[in-house]
Amino acid sequence: MLQLARHVPWLLYCSTMRMLISNTTVIGEGGAVLPATDVIIDGGKYVGLLPTGKAQGPFDKSISGEGKILAPGLFNAHTHLAMTLFRGKAADMNLMQWLEEEIWPVEKKLTAEDVHWFSRLGLVEMIRSGTVGFADMYFFMDEVAQAAEEAGLRALLSYGIIAPSADRVEPELRKAEEFASAWNGTADGRITTAFSPHAPYTCGPELWSQATKLARELKIPIHTHLAETKEEVDRMREQTGRTPVEWLEGLGVFSVPTLAAHCVHVTEKDCNILAAHRVAVAHCPTSNARLACGIAPTTDLLNGGVCVALGTDGPGSSGSLDLLREMRMAAMLGKLRQTDPQAIGVDQTLAMASKNGAAALGLRNETGTIAEGKWADGILVARRNAHMIPGYSPLTDLVYSAEKADVEAVFVKGNMLMEGRRLLTLDEERITAKCRELVGKYR
Amino acid sequence: MLQLARHVPWLLYCSTMRMLISNTTVIGEGGAVLPATDVIIDGGKYVGLLPTGKAQGPFDKSISGEGKILAPGLFNAHTHLAMTLFRGKAADMNLMQWLEEEIWPVEKKLTAEDVHWFSRLGLVEMIRSGTVGFADMYFFMDEVAQAAEEAGLRALLSYGIIAPSADRVEPELRKAEEFASAWNGTADGRITTAFSPHAPYTCGPELWSQATKLARELKIPIHTHLAETKEEVDRMREQTGRTPVEWLEGLGVFSVPTLAAHCVHVTEKDCNILAAHRVAVAHCPTSNARLACGIAPTTDLLNGGVCVALGTDGPGSSGSLDLLREMRMAAMLGKLRQTDPQAIGVDQTLAMASKNGAAALGLRNETGTIAEGKWADGILVARRNAHMIPGYSPLTDLVYSAEKADVEAVFVKGNMLMEGRRLLTLDEERITAKCRELVGKYR
Repeated sequence: MLQLARHVPWLLYCSTMRMLISNTTVIGEGGAVLPATDVIIDGGKYVGLLPTGKAQGPFDKSISGEGKILAPGLFNAHTHLAMTLFRGKAADMNLMQWLEEEIWPVEKKLTAEDVHWFSRLGLVEMIRSGTVGFADMYFFMDEVAQAAEEAGLRALLSYGIIAPSADRVEPELRKAEEFASAWNGTADGRITTAFSPHAPYTCGPELWSQATKLARELKIPIHTHLAETKEEVDRMREQTGRTPVEWLEGLGVFSVPTLAAHCVHVTEKDCNILAAHRVAVAHCPTSNARLACGIAPTTDLLNGGVCVALGTDGPGSSGSLDLLREMRMAAMLGKLRQTDPQAIGVDQTLAMASKNGAAALGLRNETGTIAEGKWADGILVARRNAHMIPGYSPLTDLVYSAEKADVEAVFVKGNMLMEGRRLLTLDEERITAKCRELVGKYR
Repeated sequence: MLQLARHVPWLLYCSTMRMLISNTTVIGEGGAVLPATDVIIDGGKYVGLLPTGKAQGPFDKSISGEGKILAPGLFNAHTHLAMTLFRGKAADMNLMQWLEEEIWPVEKKLTAEDVHWFSRLGLVEMIRSGTVGFADMYFFMDEVAQAAEEAGLRALLSYGIIAPSADRVEPELRKAEEFASAWNGTADGRITTAFSPHAPYTCGPELWSQATKLARELKIPIHTHLAETKEEVDRMREQTGRTPVEWLEGLGVFSVPTLAAHCVHVTEKDCNILAAHRVAVAHCPTSNARLACGIAPTTDLLNGGVCVALGTDGPGSSGSLDLLREMRMAAMLGKLRQTDPQAIGVDQTLAMASKNGAAALGLRNETGTIAEGKWADGILVARRNAHMIPGYSPLTDLVYSAEKADVEAVFVKGNMLMEGRRLLTLDEERITAKCRELVGKYR
């Protein structure tokens, strides 16, 4: 409680203040670079982007943006934050073997205290790598929600429903509903909630139908895993004659806004279905590569009009919550899949991680770009380190050369979560110490 | 000169001293993890790996390895260091378009001063990301050699020969020979040299034959580009009925030790030829992905007995000289290519970047692993940052989660090049300032 009391008043104060980021290089809409710009933030929104020297004070706070890139904050559209607990627990396994042998057995031991601390560990890593919002599906979600509230990020949160037998459907749905109702719209609107049947292969049609109905009643979206492996698609085809995408469409799931992670193995018809229903896709290139699931057809999806965002997936499979890495992976794998170096340009790559990520979290047109009237969610990235020199193109450097240690400041609605690489809302030392202590029983 | 004088006596002094790295976690041969180990270095070599507390002093220098991983230093088996000058100059282009439109025209403006500073810029980045040795092929190579000598890294260096017309063959070969003779075996044996006809598609058979003959006379290897793009292979087949690998074998090139970068498009027969002649391959997954060249068949090459090392290629195409990134890419692309998450395990990945890299530089059995009797080339990597927790497996964390900012110390032959993240042999501030100044004419 002491910690909460220390941070909350400050956060509330910041939201209302008038701030200047002076003389910076802005990456604006469509990846357009605006050099030597003064950026004014007021009431948590961008209210002015002016040539350096033109901004009129007074300001409650002023930060020098000289030698830095001001980029949109990044959105992690699919993760399981507390799985930081399982990072590095196993390498070089396939998805089902990894889940069945390494993850599901140990997840049974999981406690609220574990999720409390390991979700905070994940938040430390996310803020340090420039993330301002995330979509998370897991267990003990009250803990994750409290962590997000405290840390100051945006979050779309849901309890992950797995109901292997019919008698689990009702209790699981109640648990999910309870969480979703309690937290939707909290933390000054930063936290919203979703319904999350885990996947078509772990939840039956009855659960999917009820979850869809509940999501519609609560006016919240569905966030799920979809078409991650070829085996999943083959099995569904065998059992139902349909692809997983067709199967969910047939159940009416896409009648509510849906965020679908992975979509690695989708047909042209699937792409059309996803586009027609405005399903957002969370592309997780690192996780899909490490588990050898394949490369999602991002070019086809984007060209078909699907909103493709980026996710790290849980750090258990990906090893990292770093969206800067994920951007590079998305760009490179997109080029490889198309055998075309012009596929997935740097502007598209950043858009997936920012604008599309915001849309995937239900914040279309509200944030994800740096422009007047948008929420002031942003990051300042240093250009001074050797690997960022010579600096012909701030956008190319951000996508291909920047790394976590270059991220100097992160803010959401104009509230600083990190400044000068110092975390302002989380006690990093205490969190890492506590996580080291708690991991003992899982070794 | 002042700078050289400041550093050289210190380097010489260090080589002869007895050093202790106490209580560290060693990643030893075959990826075996040795916890709580005291490591003794004497005369530039590892002379003892003992349980913590068992090392007998006195020591001239002692470093705490607690909470850190001691890993083999990494070897970048293919790069063009001074191309830091072109980092980010163009994104999203194919190889030939990029070379012909963006790189070759500006390379004509290149001066010795540019290479002097931009190769040092690359060395800063390489040391910071844990690199202890590199194979470089470029122009103004005296500058690169001086930079490597000063920085304290190991280097296999060569002048890159491109001879588009017959009258250029002789002068180009003389230039290459002059450099190779002058620098081979210098810097206390840290610098060796090679002959580098650029590629089968840029150098004719006469040049290749003469270069091979000269390399044999000078007892130095050949370092070249090979089978990078499908177009290159198709064209060679059309013109000669052979693959580029078959063509070089036919010319007798592989009768001298050869380091071949890329080898993305190789047949089973090509793999057999490379293995039979003990050609080392520098796999450059990031560059190959960004230019959409494809994914090299590393599993086939490794299973066939080929020594596969890792290279970043020039930072113009890859955006980075960071071998930690390159390890992750190699592992992930290897899994994707094989549709098998067990392809390219963490042990194989580290071996490619360390042991195989050392072999590719002609240092087989001399370095590349941490074991008694090997040269003390190593890196200390912090385990304290959030993204390295909880730390079940130091090897998995090193390959999948570590990043440049975690590398705290780098040493070659027991000489510290970086300690506590402070560079000891290069003046980083001066180098970055000078590079920013020089880049003006290329904008």
